[in-house]
Amino acid sequence: MSRLSGVGVSSGRASGPVARVSEPLPEPASGPAPADPAAEAARIRPAADAVGERLFQRASRVDGDAKAILETTAAMAMDPALTSQAEQLVTSRSLSAARAVHEAAGGFADALRSAGGYMAERARDVQDVRDRIIAELLGITPPGVPELEEPSILVAHDLAPADTADLDPAMVLALVTEEGGPTSHTAILARALGIPAVVAVRGLFEDTGFAGAVVDGDTGEVETLDDAVPAEAAQRGAPAEWNGVGATADGHAVNIVANIGSVADARTAVEAGAQGVGLFRTEFCYLAADDEPPVATQRSAYGAILAPFTGRPVVVRTLDAGADKPLAFLNMGVEPNPALGVRGVRVSFDRQGVLDRQLEAIAGAAADSGADVSVMAPMVSTASEAAWFAGRVRAAGLGRAGVMIEVPAAALSAREILEVVDFVSIGTNDLAQYVFAADRMAGALAALNDPWQPALLRLVGMVGEAGAELGKPVGVCGEAAADPLLARVLVGLGVTSLSMVPAAVTGVGAAVAGGSLDACRRAAEAALGAADPAEARQRAREALG
Amino acid sequence: MSRLSGVGVSSGRASGPVARVSEPLPEPASGPAPADPAAEAARIRPAADAVGERLFQRASRVDGDAKAILETTAAMAMDPALTSQAEQLVTSRSLSAARAVHEAAGGFADALRSAGGYMAERARDVQDVRDRIIAELLGITPPGVPELEEPSILVAHDLAPADTADLDPAMVLALVTEEGGPTSHTAILARALGIPAVVAVRGLFEDTGFAGAVVDGDTGEVETLDDAVPAEAAQRGAPAEWNGVGATADGHAVNIVANIGSVADARTAVEAGAQGVGLFRTEFCYLAADDEPPVATQRSAYGAILAPFTGRPVVVRTLDAGADKPLAFLNMGVEPNPALGVRGVRVSFDRQGVLDRQLEAIAGAAADSGADVSVMAPMVSTASEAAWFAGRVRAAGLGRAGVMIEVPAAALSAREILEVVDFVSIGTNDLAQYVFAADRMAGALAALNDPWQPALLRLVGMVGEAGAELGKPVGVCGEAAADPLLARVLVGLGVTSLSMVPAAVTGVGAAVAGGSLDACRRAAEAALGAADPAEARQRAREALG
Repeated sequence: MSRLSGVGVSSGRASGPVARVSEPLPEPASGPAPADPAAEAARIRPAADAVGERLFQRASRVDGDAKAILETTAAMAMDPALTSQAEQLVTSRSLSAARAVHEAAGGFADALRSAGGYMAERARDVQDVRDRIIAELLGITPPGVPELEEPSILVAHDLAPADTADLDPAMVLALVTEEGGPTSHTAILARALGIPAVVAVRGLFEDTGFAGAVVDGDTGEVETLDDAVPAEAAQRGAPAEWNGVGATADGHAVNIVANIGSVADARTAVEAGAQGVGLFRTEFCYLAADDEPPVATQRSAYGAILAPFTGRPVVVRTLDAGADKPLAFLNMGVEPNPALGVRGVRVSFDRQGVLDRQLEAIAGAAADSGADVSVMAPMVSTASEAAWFAGRVRAAGLGRAGVMIEVPAAALSAREILEVVDFVSIGTNDLAQYVFAADRMAGALAALNDPWQPALLRLVGMVGEAGAELGKPVGVCGEAAADPLLARVLVGLGVTSLSMVPAAVTGVGAAVAGGSLDACRRAAEAALGAADPAEARQRAREALG
Repeated sequence: MSRLSGVGVSSGRASGPVARVSEPLPEPASGPAPADPAAEAARIRPAADAVGERLFQRASRVDGDAKAILETTAAMAMDPALTSQAEQLVTSRSLSAARAVHEAAGGFADALRSAGGYMAERARDVQDVRDRIIAELLGITPPGVPELEEPSILVAHDLAPADTADLDPAMVLALVTEEGGPTSHTAILARALGIPAVVAVRGLFEDTGFAGAVVDGDTGEVETLDDAVPAEAAQRGAPAEWNGVGATADGHAVNIVANIGSVADARTAVEAGAQGVGLFRTEFCYLAADDEPPVATQRSAYGAILAPFTGRPVVVRTLDAGADKPLAFLNMGVEPNPALGVRGVRVSFDRQGVLDRQLEAIAGAAADSGADVSVMAPMVSTASEAAWFAGRVRAAGLGRAGVMIEVPAAALSAREILEVVDFVSIGTNDLAQYVFAADRMAGALAALNDPWQPALLRLVGMVGEAGAELGKPVGVCGEAAADPLLARVLVGLGVTSLSMVPAAVTGVGAAVAGGSLDACRRAAEAALGAADPAEARQRAREALG
């Protein structure tokens, strides 16, 4: 028995037997060569079909997002391009079937990754399919969440969307992961389902012997037990419920809106009850093409995403590219520190035509859809840059112009910037990266990038104050907005709009509605005075009772 | 005739004929092959010797720094390693002598650059020598400042230390450059010599026809004239004079100290009248070795530099390495954004022994020299990091521990940090880079890295306020401290110590002594409210009369 502690991200207590999410498969060896390559190759298609069938069966039992995720994965498993390439590798290079599937899928994943952006995210799905087919071929347990036979506590390194698409809340007592944070997929999912959860539990996988656990999603404590214990979920939280009105309990309006970047996201956001969109990423439209997409192409692509939002507010962000998100037609050079280079709106200063054509397309799509469209620029640093951008937006006939606050200088100049634009939206992910001079992608520096860092909250508070003084909206569209507890702190700091992944909408909407604006302000005050992120979280929780 | 404007960095007015600093030589062509390679190779050594002799002659006419710079360059020109390698290239590859010198020097410069840090800075000197030898071989004007036959206005893209080591103030009426800023070498030199100067003059080289100019070092205006005009320097400024007491006119103490990183720097700092050292960079000690230098080696290296400062304050900065300043023995990985990676004190968290051994060596050198040594860490982000570092410093028996403020989060947590350390020192160069998310080395983003940016000054002001509240010193050791006008603004923001290149000491000391603390505060107030760097500079100048 040992006591571990992590970050409690979804309320409630549970105890019970432990079920472990299988680890990724080890890479299949290259040899020995099969005795009968033709027979070995013939094993691949049935294995792939069995994996696909099983995923389609799972898909048939669920609805909505979960159905879509599982059907997509099933179709990928049965893709003839993958199986026929693997068959060829068996016969031409005398590989085992498992190794051949590994290599064929690797080629697909590399191609997706080198396409960048949205395509790169699909690379993970290809790996998931690959591992399922290999497990089928080897007759071993496939990676991912096991079929639960009794109510259990799920223990994992981390959970990905495909792992959890059809998780049955009746069978899952609690979630415990070694990785992740308050805005991770695990945290958001747990809150949406009302399942207690603790993430970022250090040392969780050092002890592999435990069969039972007691989990407290409020304090973040996890007790591991040598034996399985009877399932109990006495203080289990209810799934968050929200009436769809974005406001504190005493009626202070807070827009609960979604981050989207595709037609599927737009549909999901509407289904989730988002009041609109706080961040519409437009990169997808450029990533699909080798060249700058023509205005008409952009207009119809944007229009398709805006369609479900007739009469509702949508904030469109203009192209956020640069050396770290390269687009061939922009001819960006190589930079030693791309995150500190010419990116976001900075790309437009020498390429005003690209911006103007995008604004023309956005204006057209706004007219086509009837959505209430605002436009904002990424990576603005000064009031004069903001004024320049607002001028371009107005020249395009669009009514409302804003900027992202993600460069620290912009936060320090929030008042001057708000004098020349209609609103700002704080991108907490990049803002934290620059405030702490710590690459978001650097694992060794992850603790600095915690959105609960008091220094980051102080900067958010300065922007909130400027917004209140000038009577202009201040949004947050970084991951911080998806953490229900932090969302209330942000409201207390003067944030008037919270934009997040659609799955977090209900949990955050309910949290904001769960208390008064004054309570939010007390929580903010408490968090600002903390010495570190853990103390900030603790103080905010106490302040909110 | 046309009117251009730049940044006035050294006071006074002058008019007169124009002398242009020659441009770098174009790359010599590879062909055709010389008819008699042996004869061609034999031309190299006499040319190199002639260049060396001429530099030694110039060195014999001056003293101090200028002498050292010219003698070093002369020795480099006569280095047999360079000439013999060039000779071999002529005979083995049938190159022209000029091309062979170009390639041999290129190899030397590459090797220096890949050694990084201080060695890399010598690469520029090798290029200077290379171009002088090539010019000698081709019988053309060598690059750099021409021999002036009458008092003239020097016009250049930019000026390097070697260009200006023995500049005769009696022959130079004014300096005008297209590049550079208030803390560039040109600006500091001009102020030291009392020569009017305007830098950052856009479009200066678009019009190549002008023969005369009128220069106003106060307003930054430059009038170019088709014809040479008689030399006139009616309102020429006097070289700055300073009594060596670091204080405002009304007696508010401000330490005027130097940035150093070598024995030569230490000597120059003492000669310049610096009251001590605000930034002693220790990287040199590590760059010279393949492995971590033993404590005894470090102790004697630091001791040699501390020796001239018996009884005077010296702030030693611990090793500032990382992926952007790689040291083999640290085994740093490659990072996508090294400036946002594991660098500075972050390197020590996993390598505490390296820090502890350096602190032991510093403590020993402090005892050996009798200097009043404090120690500070680079790249600190939070109060808990600062407390950890202060603990290590005290464990080493060193009395005073401080941290650099160069990560924006540290500035936003200045109060909490000052509660656990004895002083802070703001590194404005890196701080600006992070506050504006703009790489210091990226030319396209240079305007954002201007130390006069109001958002940067606001952050400095927050640190100054925290220092005043807690009664602890706040220094600046970035380039901002070397600009006499900005130095007074920094004093007005609560900065109590200014550390700079030795050449700037007299000018800044005199500027600070030139008015009251209240005047500095008014200048600071005026600059904080400005919309951009140009307005901040203008307002500060007006506020100071």
